[in-house]
Amino acid sequence: MTAKFIVIEGLEGAGKSTAMQACQQFLADKAIDFIQTREPGGTPLAEALRDLVKQQHEESIAAETELMMMYAARMQLLHNVITPALNKGQWVVGDRHDMSSQAYQGGGRGLPQEALTALSGIVLQGLKPDLTLYLDIRPEIGLARAKGRGELDRIELEAMSFFERTRARYLTLANADEHCVIINAEQPIERVHKDIIAALDTFYLGVKA
Amino acid sequence: MTAKFIVIEGLEGAGKSTAMQACQQFLADKAIDFIQTREPGGTPLAEALRDLVKQQHEESIAAETELMMMYAARMQLLHNVITPALNKGQWVVGDRHDMSSQAYQGGGRGLPQEALTALSGIVLQGLKPDLTLYLDIRPEIGLARAKGRGELDRIELEAMSFFERTRARYLTLANADEHCVIINAEQPIERVHKDIIAALDTFYLGVKA
Ligand SMILES: Nc1ncnc2c1ncn2[C@@H]1O[C@H](COP(=O)(O)OP(=O)(O)O)[C@@H](O)[C@H]1O
Ligand SMILES: Nc1ncnc2c1ncn2[C@@H]1O[C@H](COP(=O)(O)OP(=O)(O)O)[C@@H](O)[C@H]1O
Ligand SMILES: [Mg+2]
Ligand SMILES: [Mg+2]
Repeated sequence: MTAKFIVIEGLEGAGKSTAMQACQQFLADKAIDFIQTREPGGTPLAEALRDLVKQQHEESIAAETELMMMYAARMQLLHNVITPALNKGQWVVGDRHDMSSQAYQGGGRGLPQEALTALSGIVLQGLKPDLTLYLDIRPEIGLARAKGRGELDRIELEAMSFFERTRARYLTLANADEHCVIINAEQPIERVHKDIIAALDTFYLGVKA
Repeated sequence: MTAKFIVIEGLEGAGKSTAMQACQQFLADKAIDFIQTREPGGTPLAEALRDLVKQQHEESIAAETELMMMYAARMQLLHNVITPALNKGQWVVGDRHDMSSQAYQGGGRGLPQEALTALSGIVLQGLKPDLTLYLDIRPEIGLARAKGRGELDRIELEAMSFFERTRARYLTLANADEHCVIINAEQPIERVHKDIIAALDTFYLGVKA
Protein backbone atom coordinates (compact mmCIF):
# COMPACT_ATOMS: atom_id res chain seq x y z
CA MET A 1 0.00 0.00 0.00
CA THR A 2 1.53 3.39 -0.98
CA ALA A 3 1.56 6.08 1.68
CA LYS A 4 -1.55 8.25 1.85
CA PHE A 5 -2.12 11.95 2.36
CA ILE A 6 -5.06 12.79 4.65
CA VAL A 7 -6.14 16.40 5.19
CA ILE A 8 -8.38 17.91 7.87
CA GLU A 9 -10.17 21.09 6.86
CA GLY A 10 -12.64 23.53 8.38
CA LEU A 11 -13.14 26.97 9.90
CA GLU A 12 -11.40 28.06 13.12
CA GLY A 13 -12.84 26.17 16.06
CA ALA A 14 -14.36 23.48 13.83
CA GLY A 15 -12.35 20.87 15.71
CA LYS A 16 -9.40 20.20 13.39
CA SER A 17 -6.85 19.78 16.19
CA THR A 18 -9.29 17.50 17.99
CA ALA A 19 -9.81 15.48 14.79
CA MET A 20 -6.03 15.24 14.34
CA GLN A 21 -5.85 13.33 17.62
CA ALA A 22 -8.48 10.87 16.39
CA CYS A 23 -6.52 10.35 13.15
CA GLN A 24 -3.29 9.75 15.04
CA GLN A 25 -4.96 7.22 17.30
CA PHE A 26 -6.45 5.47 14.27
CA LEU A 27 -3.12 5.22 12.42
CA ALA A 28 -1.19 4.20 15.53
CA ASP A 29 -3.72 1.38 16.11
CA LYS A 30 -3.05 0.15 12.57
CA ALA A 31 0.73 0.46 13.12
CA ILE A 32 0.96 2.85 10.17
CA ASP A 33 4.01 5.13 10.17
CA PHE A 34 2.90 8.74 9.71
CA ILE A 35 3.80 12.37 10.23
CA GLN A 36 1.57 15.28 11.11
CA THR A 37 1.73 18.73 9.43
CA ARG A 38 -0.02 22.03 9.76
CA GLU A 39 -0.48 24.83 7.24
CA PRO A 40 0.67 27.45 6.88
CA GLY A 41 3.87 26.26 8.56
CA GLY A 42 5.85 23.12 9.14
CA THR A 43 9.34 24.24 8.10
CA PRO A 44 11.34 27.09 9.67
CA LEU A 45 10.70 29.41 6.70
CA ALA A 46 7.05 28.35 6.42
CA GLU A 47 6.57 29.03 10.15
CA ALA A 48 8.14 32.48 9.73
CA LEU A 49 5.68 33.12 6.86
CA ARG A 50 2.84 31.86 9.08
CA ASP A 51 3.78 34.35 11.79
CA LEU A 52 3.97 37.21 9.27
CA VAL A 53 0.63 36.40 7.66
CA LYS A 54 -1.24 35.96 10.95
CA GLN A 55 0.20 39.05 12.65
CA GLN A 56 -1.57 42.35 12.70
CA HIS A 57 0.27 44.94 10.59
CA GLU A 58 0.13 48.74 10.50
CA GLU A 59 -0.11 48.60 6.70
CA SER A 60 -3.00 47.00 4.82
CA ILE A 61 -2.22 43.52 3.53
CA ALA A 62 -3.38 42.94 -0.04
CA ALA A 63 -5.39 39.76 -0.54
CA GLU A 64 -2.92 38.75 -3.26
CA THR A 65 -0.01 39.12 -0.83
CA GLU A 66 -1.76 36.83 1.65
CA LEU A 67 -2.39 34.32 -1.13
CA MET A 68 1.25 34.28 -2.28
CA MET A 69 2.53 33.92 1.27
CA MET A 70 0.22 30.96 1.87
CA TYR A 71 1.47 29.26 -1.28
CA ALA A 72 5.11 30.11 -0.53
CA ALA A 73 4.71 28.35 2.83
CA ARG A 74 2.89 25.42 1.16
CA MET A 75 5.68 25.08 -1.40
CA GLN A 76 8.29 24.75 1.36
CA LEU A 77 6.22 22.20 3.24
CA LEU A 78 5.59 20.10 0.14
CA HIS A 79 9.19 20.30 -1.02
CA ASN A 80 10.89 19.66 2.30
CA VAL A 81 8.37 17.62 4.32
CA ILE A 82 5.29 16.15 2.62
CA THR A 83 6.84 14.78 -0.58
CA PRO A 84 9.91 13.28 1.15
CA ALA A 85 7.66 11.61 3.75
CA LEU A 86 5.30 10.11 1.16
CA ASN A 87 8.30 8.92 -0.87
CA LYS A 88 9.66 7.15 2.22
CA GLY A 89 6.29 5.44 2.74
CA GLN A 90 5.12 7.57 5.66
CA TRP A 91 1.52 8.70 5.67
CA VAL A 92 0.93 12.42 6.11
CA VAL A 93 -1.96 13.90 8.09
CA GLY A 94 -2.34 17.63 7.47
CA ASP A 95 -4.13 20.24 9.59
CA ARG A 96 -5.23 22.37 6.61
CA HIS A 97 -3.92 22.26 3.04
CA ASP A 98 -4.89 23.65 -0.35
CA MET A 99 -8.65 23.66 0.27
CA SER A 100 -8.04 26.33 2.94
CA SER A 101 -6.58 28.73 0.36
CA GLN A 102 -9.41 28.00 -2.04
CA ALA A 103 -11.96 28.68 0.72
CA TYR A 104 -10.37 31.63 2.58
CA GLN A 105 -8.53 33.50 -0.17
CA GLY A 106 -10.92 32.44 -2.94
CA GLY A 107 -14.27 32.42 -1.13
CA GLY A 108 -13.55 34.73 1.81
CA ARG A 109 -11.35 37.32 0.09
CA GLY A 110 -12.99 36.91 -3.31
CA LEU A 111 -9.78 36.44 -5.27
CA PRO A 112 -10.42 35.25 -8.84
CA GLN A 113 -10.22 31.56 -9.64
CA GLU A 114 -7.40 32.14 -12.16
CA ALA A 115 -5.07 33.40 -9.42
CA LEU A 116 -5.78 30.35 -7.27
CA THR A 117 -5.43 27.97 -10.20
CA ALA A 118 -2.13 29.52 -11.24
CA LEU A 119 -0.58 29.27 -7.78
CA SER A 120 -1.89 25.83 -6.94
CA GLY A 121 -0.64 24.62 -10.33
CA ILE A 122 2.86 25.96 -9.64
CA VAL A 123 3.01 24.55 -6.11
CA LEU A 124 1.04 21.30 -6.01
CA GLN A 125 2.21 19.80 -9.31
CA GLY A 126 -0.70 17.40 -9.23
CA LEU A 127 -0.53 16.30 -5.59
CA LYS A 128 -4.05 15.76 -4.21
CA PRO A 129 -5.08 14.50 -0.78
CA ASP A 130 -6.27 10.89 -0.79
CA LEU A 131 -8.84 11.77 1.84
CA THR A 132 -10.12 15.12 3.10
CA LEU A 133 -12.21 15.36 6.26
CA TYR A 134 -14.11 18.65 6.07
CA LEU A 135 -15.49 19.64 9.46
CA ASP A 136 -18.51 21.78 8.69
CA ILE A 137 -19.62 24.35 11.25
CA ARG A 138 -21.42 27.70 11.30
CA PRO A 139 -18.77 30.40 11.77
CA GLU A 140 -20.38 31.92 14.86
CA ILE A 141 -20.19 28.56 16.61
CA GLY A 142 -16.62 27.84 15.52
CA LEU A 143 -15.36 31.31 16.44
CA ALA A 144 -17.01 31.10 19.86
CA ARG A 145 -15.07 27.86 20.46
CA ALA A 146 -11.84 29.39 19.10
CA LYS A 147 -12.18 32.44 21.37
CA GLY A 148 -11.81 30.11 24.33
CA ARG A 149 -8.19 29.56 23.17
CA GLY A 150 -7.14 33.20 23.65
CA GLU A 151 -6.25 36.14 21.37
CA LEU A 152 -7.66 36.06 17.84
CA ASP A 153 -5.16 36.61 14.99
CA ARG A 154 -5.46 38.93 11.95
CA ILE A 155 -7.53 36.46 9.94
CA GLU A 156 -9.69 35.33 12.87
CA LEU A 157 -10.60 39.00 13.40
CA GLU A 158 -12.34 39.25 10.00
CA ALA A 159 -16.06 40.08 9.80
CA MET A 160 -18.60 37.27 10.09
CA SER A 161 -19.51 37.73 6.39
CA PHE A 162 -15.91 36.78 5.49
CA PHE A 163 -16.33 33.44 7.26
CA GLU A 164 -19.78 32.93 5.74
CA ARG A 165 -18.22 33.23 2.28
CA THR A 166 -15.39 30.95 3.33
CA ARG A 167 -17.78 28.29 4.61
CA ALA A 168 -19.92 28.51 1.47
CA ARG A 169 -16.83 27.92 -0.70
CA TYR A 170 -15.74 25.06 1.55
CA LEU A 171 -19.13 23.39 1.09
CA THR A 172 -19.02 23.82 -2.68
CA LEU A 173 -15.55 22.32 -2.87
CA ALA A 174 -16.29 19.50 -0.42
CA ASN A 175 -19.44 18.50 -2.29
CA ALA A 176 -17.60 18.44 -5.61
CA ASP A 177 -14.68 16.34 -4.30
CA GLU A 178 -15.26 12.59 -4.28
CA HIS A 179 -12.32 12.14 -1.90
CA CYS A 180 -13.83 14.46 0.69
CA VAL A 181 -16.10 13.46 3.57
CA ILE A 182 -18.22 16.18 5.16
CA ILE A 183 -18.53 15.86 8.94
CA ASN A 184 -21.14 17.77 10.92
CA ALA A 185 -18.82 19.49 13.40
CA GLU A 186 -21.66 21.04 15.41
CA GLN A 187 -22.46 17.69 16.98
CA PRO A 188 -21.22 16.76 20.46
CA ILE A 189 -17.54 15.90 20.45
CA GLU A 190 -18.16 12.12 20.85
CA ARG A 191 -20.43 12.05 17.77
CA VAL A 192 -17.88 13.98 15.71
CA HIS A 193 -15.21 11.53 16.85
CA LYS A 194 -17.37 8.56 15.80
CA ASP A 195 -18.00 10.08 12.37
CA ILE A 196 -14.28 10.67 11.86
CA ILE A 197 -13.39 7.10 12.80
CA ALA A 198 -16.13 5.81 10.50
CA ALA A 199 -14.74 7.86 7.59
CA LEU A 200 -11.21 6.60 8.29
CA ASP A 201 -12.45 2.99 8.51
CA THR A 202 -14.19 3.23 5.16
CA PHE A 203 -11.14 4.88 3.58
CA TYR A 204 -8.78 2.28 5.03
CA LEU A 205 -10.90 -0.62 3.82
CA GLY A 206 -10.91 0.93 0.35
CA VAL A 207 -7.16 1.40 0.07
CA LYS A 208 -6.28 -1.96 1.67
CA ALA A 209 -8.39 -3.86 -0.84
CA MET B 1 2.44 65.41 -17.53
CA THR B 2 1.37 62.29 -15.63
CA ALA B 3 3.79 60.87 -13.09
CA LYS B 4 6.34 58.40 -14.45
CA PHE B 5 7.76 55.14 -13.17
CA ILE B 6 11.52 54.74 -13.75
CA VAL B 7 13.29 51.50 -12.84
CA ILE B 8 17.00 50.77 -12.44
CA GLU B 9 18.01 47.17 -13.08
CA GLY B 10 21.18 45.11 -13.13
CA LEU B 11 23.26 42.50 -11.32
CA GLU B 12 24.73 43.09 -7.85
CA GLY B 13 27.47 45.67 -8.02
CA ALA B 14 26.33 46.96 -11.42
CA GLY B 15 25.93 50.42 -9.91
CA LYS B 16 22.17 50.65 -9.26
CA SER B 17 22.50 52.58 -5.99
CA THR B 18 24.99 54.90 -7.68
CA ALA B 19 22.59 55.38 -10.62
CA MET B 20 19.77 56.11 -8.16
CA GLN B 21 21.71 59.15 -6.95
CA ALA B 22 22.05 60.39 -10.53
CA CYS B 23 18.28 59.99 -11.07
CA GLN B 24 17.49 61.84 -7.88
CA GLN B 25 19.76 64.71 -8.86
CA PHE B 26 18.17 64.84 -12.31
CA LEU B 27 14.60 64.96 -10.96
CA ALA B 28 15.45 67.44 -8.21
CA ASP B 29 17.00 69.76 -10.85
CA LYS B 30 13.71 69.62 -12.80
CA ALA B 31 11.74 70.25 -9.57
CA ILE B 32 9.86 66.97 -10.09
CA ASP B 33 8.29 65.47 -6.98
CA PHE B 34 9.35 61.83 -6.65
CA ILE B 35 9.83 58.94 -4.28
CA GLN B 36 12.46 56.23 -4.32
CA THR B 37 11.75 52.51 -3.77
CA ARG B 38 13.74 49.32 -3.61
CA GLU B 39 12.71 45.74 -4.26
CA PRO B 40 12.18 43.45 -2.61
CA GLY B 41 11.13 45.77 0.21
CA GLY B 42 9.67 49.19 0.78
CA THR B 43 6.86 48.41 3.23
CA PRO B 44 7.24 46.81 6.67
CA LEU B 45 5.90 43.45 5.47
CA ALA B 46 7.87 43.63 2.21
CA GLU B 47 11.06 44.37 4.16
CA ALA B 48 10.36 41.39 6.43
CA LEU B 49 9.96 39.24 3.30
CA ARG B 50 13.20 40.72 1.92
CA ASP B 51 15.06 39.70 5.08
CA LEU B 52 13.61 36.18 4.94
CA VAL B 53 14.42 35.66 1.28
CA LYS B 54 17.99 36.98 1.53
CA GLN B 55 18.88 35.13 4.73
CA GLN B 56 20.69 31.84 4.73
CA HIS B 57 18.42 29.02 5.94
CA GLU B 58 19.14 25.53 7.26
CA GLU B 59 16.48 24.13 4.93
CA SER B 60 16.65 24.29 1.14
CA ILE B 61 14.53 27.10 -0.34
CA ALA B 62 12.53 26.02 -3.40
CA ALA B 63 12.89 28.33 -6.39
CA GLU B 64 9.10 28.64 -6.46
CA THR B 65 9.08 29.78 -2.82
CA GLU B 66 11.61 32.49 -3.62
CA LEU B 67 9.50 33.56 -6.61
CA MET B 68 6.30 33.83 -4.57
CA MET B 69 8.02 35.76 -1.80
CA MET B 70 9.42 38.24 -4.33
CA TYR B 71 5.96 38.78 -5.81
CA ALA B 72 4.31 38.98 -2.38
CA ALA B 73 6.73 41.80 -1.51
CA ARG B 74 6.13 43.45 -4.91
CA MET B 75 2.36 43.28 -4.39
CA GLN B 76 2.65 45.12 -1.06
CA LEU B 77 4.91 47.78 -2.54
CA LEU B 78 2.64 48.35 -5.54
CA HIS B 79 -0.52 48.40 -3.43
CA ASN B 80 0.72 50.58 -0.60
CA VAL B 81 3.46 52.74 -2.13
CA ILE B 82 3.94 52.83 -5.92
CA THR B 83 0.32 53.11 -7.06
CA PRO B 84 -0.67 55.70 -4.42
CA ALA B 85 2.40 57.82 -5.31
CA LEU B 86 1.73 57.72 -9.06
CA ASN B 87 -1.93 58.55 -8.42
CA LYS B 88 -0.85 61.61 -6.41
CA GLY B 89 1.40 62.75 -9.26
CA GLN B 90 4.70 61.73 -7.69
CA TRP B 91 7.26 60.04 -9.91
CA VAL B 92 8.64 56.74 -8.67
CA VAL B 93 12.25 55.65 -9.13
CA GLY B 94 12.73 51.98 -8.31
CA ASP B 95 15.94 50.14 -7.44
CA ARG B 96 14.85 46.84 -9.09
CA HIS B 97 11.34 45.78 -10.11
CA ASP B 98 9.72 43.02 -12.16
CA MET B 99 12.63 42.56 -14.59
CA SER B 100 14.70 41.31 -11.63
CA SER B 101 12.28 38.41 -11.05
CA GLN B 102 12.23 37.60 -14.75
CA ALA B 103 16.04 37.61 -14.85
CA TYR B 104 16.93 35.97 -11.50
CA GLN B 105 14.05 33.54 -10.92
CA GLY B 106 13.35 32.99 -14.63
CA GLY B 107 16.87 33.09 -16.12
CA GLY B 108 18.99 32.29 -13.07
CA ARG B 109 16.78 29.68 -11.40
CA GLY B 110 15.26 28.43 -14.64
CA LEU B 111 11.63 28.68 -13.53
CA PRO B 112 9.21 28.25 -16.43
CA GLN B 113 7.81 31.31 -18.15
CA GLU B 114 4.22 30.32 -17.24
CA ALA B 115 4.96 30.68 -13.51
CA LEU B 116 6.44 34.14 -14.03
CA THR B 117 3.63 35.22 -16.33
CA ALA B 118 0.99 34.02 -13.86
CA LEU B 119 2.48 35.87 -10.90
CA SER B 120 3.32 39.08 -12.74
CA GLY B 121 -0.21 39.06 -14.16
CA ILE B 122 -1.71 38.76 -10.67
CA VAL B 123 0.52 41.44 -9.15
CA LEU B 124 1.27 44.06 -11.82
CA GLN B 125 -2.19 44.33 -13.35
CA GLY B 126 -0.72 46.01 -16.42
CA LEU B 127 1.68 48.43 -14.69
CA LYS B 128 4.87 48.81 -16.72
CA PRO B 129 7.85 51.10 -16.09
CA ASP B 130 7.94 54.14 -18.39
CA LEU B 131 11.71 53.87 -18.48
CA THR B 132 14.09 51.11 -17.43
CA LEU B 133 17.82 51.73 -17.13
CA TYR B 134 19.51 48.35 -17.36
CA LEU B 135 23.11 48.51 -16.14
CA ASP B 136 24.89 45.71 -17.95
CA ILE B 137 27.97 44.19 -16.36
CA ARG B 138 29.78 40.84 -16.37
CA PRO B 139 28.93 39.10 -13.10
CA GLU B 140 32.54 38.63 -11.99
CA ILE B 141 33.10 42.37 -12.20
CA GLY B 142 29.84 43.26 -10.44
CA LEU B 143 30.36 40.71 -7.68
CA ALA B 144 33.90 41.94 -7.08
CA ARG B 145 32.48 45.44 -6.57
CA ALA B 146 29.67 44.13 -4.35
CA LYS B 147 32.12 42.21 -2.17
CA GLY B 148 33.63 45.53 -1.17
CA ARG B 149 30.33 46.22 0.66
CA GLY B 150 30.72 43.30 3.10
CA GLU B 151 29.00 39.94 3.61
CA LEU B 152 27.27 38.39 0.61
CA ASP B 153 23.64 37.26 1.10
CA ARG B 154 22.03 33.94 0.11
CA ILE B 155 21.43 34.99 -3.48
CA GLU B 156 24.78 36.75 -3.91
CA LEU B 157 26.45 33.46 -2.86
CA GLU B 158 25.10 31.60 -5.91
CA ALA B 159 27.54 30.08 -8.45
CA MET B 160 28.86 32.26 -11.25
CA SER B 161 26.80 30.25 -13.77
CA PHE B 162 23.63 31.43 -12.00
CA PHE B 163 24.58 35.06 -12.63
CA GLU B 164 25.60 34.29 -16.21
CA ARG B 165 22.09 32.95 -16.85
CA THR B 166 20.61 35.95 -15.05
CA ARG B 167 22.61 38.40 -17.14
CA ALA B 168 21.73 36.59 -20.38
CA ARG B 169 18.00 36.85 -19.53
CA TYR B 170 18.42 40.51 -18.58
CA LEU B 171 19.97 41.22 -21.99
CA THR B 172 17.21 39.37 -23.83
CA LEU B 173 14.53 41.30 -21.94
CA ALA B 174 16.29 44.65 -22.23
CA ASN B 175 16.78 44.25 -25.98
CA ALA B 176 13.11 43.36 -26.47
CA ASP B 177 11.81 46.29 -24.40
CA GLU B 178 11.50 49.59 -26.27
CA HIS B 179 11.28 51.46 -22.96
CA CYS B 180 14.59 50.08 -21.74
CA VAL B 181 18.01 51.69 -22.21
CA ILE B 182 21.07 49.46 -21.85
CA ILE B 183 24.00 51.15 -20.12
CA ASN B 184 27.51 49.71 -20.22
CA ALA B 185 28.15 49.57 -16.49
CA GLU B 186 31.75 48.42 -16.84
CA GLN B 187 32.84 51.90 -17.87
CA PRO B 188 34.42 54.31 -15.40
CA ILE B 189 31.86 55.76 -13.02
CA GLU B 190 31.85 59.21 -14.72
CA ARG B 191 31.04 57.68 -18.14
CA VAL B 192 28.23 55.60 -16.64
CA HIS B 193 26.89 58.76 -15.00
CA LYS B 194 26.98 60.63 -18.33
CA ASP B 195 25.13 57.80 -20.09
CA ILE B 196 22.44 57.76 -17.39
CA ILE B 197 21.89 61.50 -17.60
CA ALA B 198 21.73 61.28 -21.40
CA ALA B 199 19.07 58.55 -21.18
CA LEU B 200 17.07 60.62 -18.68
CA ASP B 201 17.35 63.74 -20.87
CA THR B 202 16.06 61.88 -23.93
CA PHE B 203 13.23 60.35 -21.89
CA TYR B 204 12.28 63.68 -20.36
CA LEU B 205 12.22 65.46 -23.72
CA GLY B 206 9.95 62.70 -25.02
CA VAL B 207 7.40 62.85 -22.21
CA LYS B 208 7.39 66.67 -22.00
CA ALA B 209 6.58 67.02 -25.70
N1 LIG C 1 -17.68 18.88 18.70
C1 LIG C 1 -17.28 19.79 19.61
N2 LIG C 1 -18.17 20.33 20.47
C2 LIG C 1 -17.78 21.25 21.35
N3 LIG C 1 -16.52 21.72 21.47
C3 LIG C 1 -15.59 21.22 20.65
C4 LIG C 1 -15.91 20.25 19.65
N4 LIG C 1 -14.79 19.94 18.98
C5 LIG C 1 -13.80 20.70 19.51
N5 LIG C 1 -14.29 21.45 20.52
C6 LIG C 1 -13.54 22.42 21.32
O1 LIG C 1 -13.50 23.63 20.57
C7 LIG C 1 -12.23 24.23 20.69
C8 LIG C 1 -11.60 24.36 19.30
O2 LIG C 1 -11.33 23.04 18.78
P1 LIG C 1 -10.03 22.76 17.92
O3 LIG C 1 -9.95 21.29 17.69
O4 LIG C 1 -8.85 23.46 18.49
O5 LIG C 1 -10.48 23.48 16.56
P2 LIG C 1 -9.60 23.93 15.29
O6 LIG C 1 -8.28 23.22 15.39
O7 LIG C 1 -10.42 23.52 14.11
O8 LIG C 1 -9.48 25.42 15.36
C9 LIG C 1 -11.40 23.37 21.62
O9 LIG C 1 -11.50 23.91 22.91
C10 LIG C 1 -12.09 22.01 21.53
O10 LIG C 1 -11.95 21.25 22.71
N1 LIG D 1 31.22 52.39 -12.91
C1 LIG D 1 31.80 51.99 -11.77
N2 LIG D 1 33.11 51.68 -11.73
C2 LIG D 1 33.69 51.25 -10.60
N3 LIG D 1 33.05 51.14 -9.43
C3 LIG D 1 31.73 51.45 -9.41
C4 LIG D 1 31.04 51.88 -10.56
N4 LIG D 1 29.75 52.10 -10.23
C5 LIG D 1 29.63 51.79 -8.91
N5 LIG D 1 30.83 51.42 -8.41
C6 LIG D 1 31.12 50.99 -7.05
O1 LIG D 1 30.77 49.61 -6.96
C7 LIG D 1 30.12 49.34 -5.73
C8 LIG D 1 28.72 48.80 -5.99
O2 LIG D 1 27.93 49.84 -6.58
P1 LIG D 1 26.39 49.98 -6.22
O3 LIG D 1 25.88 51.26 -6.85
O4 LIG D 1 26.17 49.81 -4.75
O5 LIG D 1 25.83 48.72 -7.03
P2 LIG D 1 24.39 47.99 -6.90
O6 LIG D 1 23.48 48.93 -6.16
O7 LIG D 1 23.97 47.74 -8.33
O8 LIG D 1 24.65 46.68 -6.19
C9 LIG D 1 30.13 50.63 -4.94
O9 LIG D 1 31.25 50.62 -4.09
C10 LIG D 1 30.27 51.69 -6.01
O10 LIG D 1 30.89 52.86 -5.54
MG1 LIG E 1 -6.31 23.82 15.39
MG1 LIG F 1 22.30 48.73 -4.46
